[in-house]
Amino acid sequence: MSGVVYLVGAGPGAPDLLTLRAARVLARADVVFHDALVHPEVVALAQRAQIFAVGKRCGAHSTAQRFIHKRLIDAARKHAVVVRLKGGDPLLFGRAQEELDALREAGIACEIVPGVSAAFAASAALGISLTERGLARSVAFATPRASAAHASSDWAAGALAADTAALYMASEHAAEIARTLIARGKSPETPVVVVENASLASQREHAATLAELAAEPPLLTGGPALLLIGPPYRRVLAARASATRRRAQASSK
Amino acid sequence: MSGVVYLVGAGPGAPDLLTLRAARVLARADVVFHDALVHPEVVALAQRAQIFAVGKRCGAHSTAQRFIHKRLIDAARKHAVVVRLKGGDPLLFGRAQEELDALREAGIACEIVPGVSAAFAASAALGISLTERGLARSVAFATPRASAAHASSDWAAGALAADTAALYMASEHAAEIARTLIARGKSPETPVVVVENASLASQREHAATLAELAAEPPLLTGGPALLLIGPPYRRVLAARASATRRRAQASSK
Repeated sequence: MSGVVYLVGAGPGAPDLLTLRAARVLARADVVFHDALVHPEVVALAQRAQIFAVGKRCGAHSTAQRFIHKRLIDAARKHAVVVRLKGGDPLLFGRAQEELDALREAGIACEIVPGVSAAFAASAALGISLTERGLARSVAFATPRASAAHASSDWAAGALAADTAALYMASEHAAEIARTLIARGKSPETPVVVVENASLASQREHAATLAELAAEPPLLTGGPALLLIGPPYRRVLAARASATRRRAQASSK
Repeated sequence: MSGVVYLVGAGPGAPDLLTLRAARVLARADVVFHDALVHPEVVALAQRAQIFAVGKRCGAHSTAQRFIHKRLIDAARKHAVVVRLKGGDPLLFGRAQEELDALREAGIACEIVPGVSAAFAASAALGISLTERGLARSVAFATPRASAAHASSDWAAGALAADTAALYMASEHAAEIARTLIARGKSPETPVVVVENASLASQREHAATLAELAAEPPLLTGGPALLLIGPPYRRVLAARASATRRRAQASSK
């Protein structure tokens, strides 16, 4: 008899954006394996569990990934409630399918607890809807992390065709992403907001056009960042422009 | 002095998929305006609030929408904590931007609490990741609810270009959607899962290819439904095929 592995979304960052179900599963956990970016207060909800940090930031390498599979399977053979805790929602850019397939192959039961993904938390903090009647009826979620081995799947196609795009794990490549989107036909005037550390006290936003982002990416502090791209973000550019005008008027007095 | 309007995501259906923050805001609420599809147990968390059901299923008409704006503004002028409770995440297909703009124009402070959107809950229940290394690097969220007035924005373009598509408010048009996607170049063999009442005890899944869906849409019970389309769902088709084989073998014995 094996235990159950719960693949749990830890939410976007702020500990109170966890779901009630996730909090209850953590309270019952015997063992927790968590990603580096999960907030310590979320991990601390697993009061009676052994806690292990696994995985690297921005995804584990394949050998490390196989080692995580082995540890999950071993833990489920010894304990009733094993939790694999991932940032955001576990089924969006989490490499969860590899873990699910490995667990099923080993005959281990698995349950998944969804979570709030970073783009929703960033949108909530900005106060701007991802979709908007008559302006943005589709949203693409993509990650531009490139790999020649997976070139068959084109991240940019989805981002170009949808009205709004949310690009994850994009902080190191913001200028390159902007140049790619412009080269493939997106208007250089398209508004973008780079949101770092969404939902945390350390959250920072940088508004720009794609052309501005291509020329000069924002200085980030190394936290997880996403790009929100599309017509709804013209509001942030407009707010920036009026703040600049106010500063100019104040300094000319 | 006006109160604050909290635009709160009620999550996908199951009451325990609400966030901790949403539960705490509801406990403090003086007034709650909720959509028809929010679970009664979530509404019941607002123990000390006046409760009003507003909005129609699948989006309110424009006059009804303006009436909701007026009620929110009036409530915020009388009460400290006003909650506008929407299914899923409030900033995805929720017509939230119209409410946010109306509140800002009236000078009412607004905070947004994100929620788990239905596609994440449906994916968790299926045990299939929306993204998959080497197979699905982008996901499009779109709603095919058509309106001639908004034809400038093309829902299908995003869904065609991304590897995975999650189509909301799609239950009444499943066959038409499948025919549109095939006509515009999507392979008729593309796997689809129709998920109705995601995360509730009444959840039902129907697996098909796009061609099968175009020929014969599933019989649904009228609950909210979404379509998940793309290569990751070949797993559900494979499971269906092996179940059919087992039944055939059993009946030939």
